[in-house]
Amino acid sequence: MIIEDSSFKRLTNFLSERKYSSIVILADSNTVGYCVPLLVEQVPFLNSSPVIIVSSGEKNKTLHSVEKIISELVSCNADRNGLLVNVGGGMITDLGGFAASVYKRGIDFIHVPTSLMAMVDAAIGGKTGVNISDIKNIAGTFAIPESVFIYHGFLQTLPEREYKSAYAEIIKHILLSDSKMWDQLVSNQLNFFAAYNLPGLIDHSVKFKQSVVSIDLHDRGGRQILNLGHTLGHAIESSLLDSPAKLFHGEAIACGLIGELYLSTKLTGLKDRVLSEAIQIISAIYPNLSFALKKQDLFPFLYADKKNNSTSIGFSLLKSPGEPAKLCFPSAELIDESIEFIINTLIDTNQFVNDKN
Amino acid sequence: MIIEDSSFKRLTNFLSERKYSSIVILADSNTVGYCVPLLVEQVPFLNSSPVIIVSSGEKNKTLHSVEKIISELVSCNADRNGLLVNVGGGMITDLGGFAASVYKRGIDFIHVPTSLMAMVDAAIGGKTGVNISDIKNIAGTFAIPESVFIYHGFLQTLPEREYKSAYAEIIKHILLSDSKMWDQLVSNQLNFFAAYNLPGLIDHSVKFKQSVVSIDLHDRGGRQILNLGHTLGHAIESSLLDSPAKLFHGEAIACGLIGELYLSTKLTGLKDRVLSEAIQIISAIYPNLSFALKKQDLFPFLYADKKNNSTSIGFSLLKSPGEPAKLCFPSAELIDESIEFIINTLIDTNQFVNDKN
Repeated sequence: MIIEDSSFKRLTNFLSERKYSSIVILADSNTVGYCVPLLVEQVPFLNSSPVIIVSSGEKNKTLHSVEKIISELVSCNADRNGLLVNVGGGMITDLGGFAASVYKRGIDFIHVPTSLMAMVDAAIGGKTGVNISDIKNIAGTFAIPESVFIYHGFLQTLPEREYKSAYAEIIKHILLSDSKMWDQLVSNQLNFFAAYNLPGLIDHSVKFKQSVVSIDLHDRGGRQILNLGHTLGHAIESSLLDSPAKLFHGEAIACGLIGELYLSTKLTGLKDRVLSEAIQIISAIYPNLSFALKKQDLFPFLYADKKNNSTSIGFSLLKSPGEPAKLCFPSAELIDESIEFIINTLIDTNQFVNDKN
Repeated sequence: MIIEDSSFKRLTNFLSERKYSSIVILADSNTVGYCVPLLVEQVPFLNSSPVIIVSSGEKNKTLHSVEKIISELVSCNADRNGLLVNVGGGMITDLGGFAASVYKRGIDFIHVPTSLMAMVDAAIGGKTGVNISDIKNIAGTFAIPESVFIYHGFLQTLPEREYKSAYAEIIKHILLSDSKMWDQLVSNQLNFFAAYNLPGLIDHSVKFKQSVVSIDLHDRGGRQILNLGHTLGHAIESSLLDSPAKLFHGEAIACGLIGELYLSTKLTGLKDRVLSEAIQIISAIYPNLSFALKKQDLFPFLYADKKNNSTSIGFSLLKSPGEPAKLCFPSAELIDESIEFIINTLIDTNQFVNDKN
């Protein structure tokens, strides 16, 4: 399914085997400039493919954009034997996957992720989604791409902040899957993410996520472990979407990880040591993570979380590195405390970093 | 799956067994006035259920309405163990089915069809859909309702024109499934649709459609026979959506049936006699079917049809009553001719009716 260095050649083979009646590319205003031309140059099959362009940014992952994509698919005469090629970060793979999965009740699609975040997370796992009223992925489908083609070269196009944002998901995957790898990360810290290590880290994330998803595509239990850090993380991200202190998805997940590992120390026996290690690593990667977070702004988003039952907010926590816990429903007081913990930790860290500067 | 006279009692049993965390009703501006109060009175389980109301009419079967429904489901704190109860005609069952199938990537839904059209067709078969740029059901999902509850009493609320509109689908189901029943219809004509016959006709339509769908939910071949009359019918309906000569769905399908039975006489060996019989029956049911149809307005909609391959327009035709044909791709000239045939037939019929008056 996953194609790395020889990705363009394999994409060419894939397209020549499948004989789609039409192939349409979806890109955003960023990826259309560099990634799409490179892709088309390397994969001549795509030479005459129309390109649908949506404005970049999570704010545009909406049903309005879905309507635009579908109208353009109609204009391109894309039929049920057509293919949509999603070229972009997680916003494009989520949005394009959704549009393809409902267009004429479903056509094939593939992902060509161009961001590290999409490579290690968004493009993998068969979930599509759009946001409504700033609630992330509140509408979506389960739909598996025919294939995912990962070309590491695209990573060179990413601004550093966006690139590093994805480390939070890599950290999460390591925490969930592998205590030895966690120890290496703790002892090695930032070197762990050096460019020469990245292909291996991407590969680890993809394989781990695929293994979880393969036993529970429809999110009936097994794959909930992947939500570690995401209940608080999504709420933080959503509450700041309109603010100047807007966070990247991974940055919000990094904050969420701090809060949910704190909850894990209270509820599922996680050792304080692991929480401290995680804070140290996250602070090293994201030294200037500060934001105007108001606790009360988070709760509406927490209550809209898809994992909830009607009265409580569900969290996927951790027992120890490599050992995820079942879904927990902490008390409102404890959730409150965990948000306080994030805020205080980050203020301390920022002061610490600023003192050093 | 289907509940008739004792439908309210069975719906009560269904709800008491399932123990949904929340139950939300979806209605349109018509059904909220009479059908919803009757339903709530008869099914006390629904007493405290919030009601989401969308404006009635096919024009509102849009992603914009989906967005509204999902925002209101969020406001109602509907979680993944919630249920959406769609109370209305085909517009509500298509729209509500779609919204439920994507809300939080899918919650349960049931249909309580209030129109004859929804009872014999729209609510059955697991297809949901919304229109974009006036192209019918261009976005949708395959999603099966947990159950469909048919209460015949709702039919008394329907205006005659809307009610009769559904006869076209009943005729189609008979044409596809049963030559003896076709002969009865031909000899009996309008008496066939007398009120005392309707429960049996509804039952026949539901069972026939379910039997077709059960072998091909995802529309990969087998269920295409159900499109008889719908390629031209949908194009006619779509092209007139903004016109004062707007047709009801079934009226458009009746026109489509005339055109596609004409194509069947040319391509799949249908006897001219059956075409004449169908014209006679359709003219008797819809004596004043006249519309300002322009042939050239139809083609953009025909080319957008989901059944097409990239170059040709696909039609599900008939060999003889009870014997559907495989998908056919007539020449553009023959399609043109079939549209002419519809127009001329209806003009003749209208003149005939007007002469008699």
